[in-house]
Amino acid sequence: MTGRSVTVAELETPALLLDLDIMTANLASTAARLRGRGIALRPHAKTHKSAEIARCQLDHGAVGLTVATIGEAEVFARHGFTDLFIAYPVFATGTKAARLAELARRVKLRIGVESAAGAQALARALAGVTGPAPAEVLIEIDSGQHRTGVPPAAAGEVAAAYRSLGLDVAGVFTHGGHGYASPGSGPGAAADEDAALWSAAQQLTGAGFDVREVSAGSTPTAAFAGSHITEERPGTYVFNDRQQVVLGSCRAEEVAVTVAATVVSTTVSGQAVIDAGSKALASDRPGWLTGHGCVPDLGDAVVVSLSEHHGLVDLAGRPAPAVGTIVTVIPNHICTVVNLFDRYTLVRSGQPAGTWPIEARGHLS
Amino acid sequence: MTGRSVTVAELETPALLLDLDIMTANLASTAARLRGRGIALRPHAKTHKSAEIARCQLDHGAVGLTVATIGEAEVFARHGFTDLFIAYPVFATGTKAARLAELARRVKLRIGVESAAGAQALARALAGVTGPAPAEVLIEIDSGQHRTGVPPAAAGEVAAAYRSLGLDVAGVFTHGGHGYASPGSGPGAAADEDAALWSAAQQLTGAGFDVREVSAGSTPTAAFAGSHITEERPGTYVFNDRQQVVLGSCRAEEVAVTVAATVVSTTVSGQAVIDAGSKALASDRPGWLTGHGCVPDLGDAVVVSLSEHHGLVDLAGRPAPAVGTIVTVIPNHICTVVNLFDRYTLVRSGQPAGTWPIEARGHLS
Repeated sequence: MTGRSVTVAELETPALLLDLDIMTANLASTAARLRGRGIALRPHAKTHKSAEIARCQLDHGAVGLTVATIGEAEVFARHGFTDLFIAYPVFATGTKAARLAELARRVKLRIGVESAAGAQALARALAGVTGPAPAEVLIEIDSGQHRTGVPPAAAGEVAAAYRSLGLDVAGVFTHGGHGYASPGSGPGAAADEDAALWSAAQQLTGAGFDVREVSAGSTPTAAFAGSHITEERPGTYVFNDRQQVVLGSCRAEEVAVTVAATVVSTTVSGQAVIDAGSKALASDRPGWLTGHGCVPDLGDAVVVSLSEHHGLVDLAGRPAPAVGTIVTVIPNHICTVVNLFDRYTLVRSGQPAGTWPIEARGHLS
Repeated sequence: MTGRSVTVAELETPALLLDLDIMTANLASTAARLRGRGIALRPHAKTHKSAEIARCQLDHGAVGLTVATIGEAEVFARHGFTDLFIAYPVFATGTKAARLAELARRVKLRIGVESAAGAQALARALAGVTGPAPAEVLIEIDSGQHRTGVPPAAAGEVAAAYRSLGLDVAGVFTHGGHGYASPGSGPGAAADEDAALWSAAQQLTGAGFDVREVSAGSTPTAAFAGSHITEERPGTYVFNDRQQVVLGSCRAEEVAVTVAATVVSTTVSGQAVIDAGSKALASDRPGWLTGHGCVPDLGDAVVVSLSEHHGLVDLAGRPAPAVGTIVTVIPNHICTVVNLFDRYTLVRSGQPAGTWPIEARGHLS
């Protein structure tokens, strides 16, 4: 990964640096690729949690947003977004049911569902609610990650059951999360998404449904969307991260967000300690990735271990940087990193360009 | 680990549950143990990040608070705390220098230092500042974790150098973080803390210093404080967590904070999926610990993998709980978990008891 100079003069580290030029290029290239294939783009906003960035995505042609929680949906609805898909098997009782109903009154809402109990709760929550458009559900299909979702062969039966509860079943969705299994897994997982969704969609058609959406998505699979996909929901593509570089989803030059950190100690030989630890870089690390980030400014040195406020960079024989040096770190997984900060520090054409708040940080429920 | 029933009726999961009875017992037992040995307690507030809980700690005899960042110090100063130790090798330039000076004008402030460049910046930041008490520094000593800190043998020399810059060197501190190396490491690391600090303190005495503080601390080592220690700085002891149970620092019954989560899917055989993932449980996991948390309500079943909003619980042959069931999870490392939430949901005598905000969440710089 190549170095990049930080020209932001007064950084209070650790800080989340967003290069708007790189982000804009990422938004444009993915939007163009999907547009060229006639596939709708509904980016997952859990990555950036920012109204400004969601607006950029819609400006680049996104049809709406994907979110993970009712809380995220509320934040984006409050900021004027009117077409939201909660791609999660929400269990909506009590105050969550009331919040979901209120959302459905205000925006065009889609919700994921994959269990009878979840469908029953959802049907109760949405009963009698009228909004700008009828709330719809998409049935979650397991395309090989084996996390959530019904098998494709069961899709017709469960769709019919959910319809009988009063839910409006608009189609099927999946997340081919096994595209993260190891570098090179993306194309195979994308093929699995396509095959599983197509099989499920045929089940629905056979059960008398008009399948209006066949929604897949993740950043490693989005570039390899199969021919039956109508909508893609990548999240990380807006920023990219170290995982995506190693997975092969992007080049290092396409990483738009880094964590700026200050070298605070070089007292122990062979290492530099930076003021970004697990509370700034998060601890996410797949088995195929070594360390918790890399430091282009130090020859791609690796952050080999984390305390809460310390990142230990293995200098691997390089000369130690001076204490006080600011470096940027490419974190493993940007989604969990963004969720640790309250704002982006913006860079445009290498110059400071203000800040943007991360309005949907937290909002886990 | 034994189960505990959740009687909080309307939980919007994931939620951070704080059992005040257990917390109070934890505060009392550690305070009593250290008081009995004549050792001051200056708990690390990075664990709880809460003004209410810090007040409870002072009520139990804590002499002041330890914090990790200038931002945390500012939050606690704003809430009326007047004796703060930033136990971190702060590099204070620019706006950080100004913020540190402003803090030193308002509260009795101690700051960690362990490099010449850090000391120079600190001396410039604090020059001419007068506050309720003169700002002091403690020199960080490496007692075996090999993260930060000078070797004990160098302490006299660096103390003299920092004094010549105008800093008021009040003593030495260390964090025996190698007490987390594996279960049973606590006593050895505590002995290392004591030996390293004593050696360093003797160096300072030899260089003409009046050593007013010999400060050690971590939850695994605090119970084994050596005879030269004047102050302990444990953080996690207030809540405990799965790590501390396995390390042997506490019993499972002494874990005060858990994450309440809802079972959202049991579609894939052999597992239950809960709505607490890496954005609620964090991904911290030492090599000696399997999984990302355990679920007492499900016979101590382990959360074997995390997505951002999904925790996969391996049922290990147990019957699947109903979708919609609320369970509590004991997370691996509570400090990074607390930092993901905005409030505690309180339980007292098994009954809901309101919420407390987590005022210092974030505040990384």
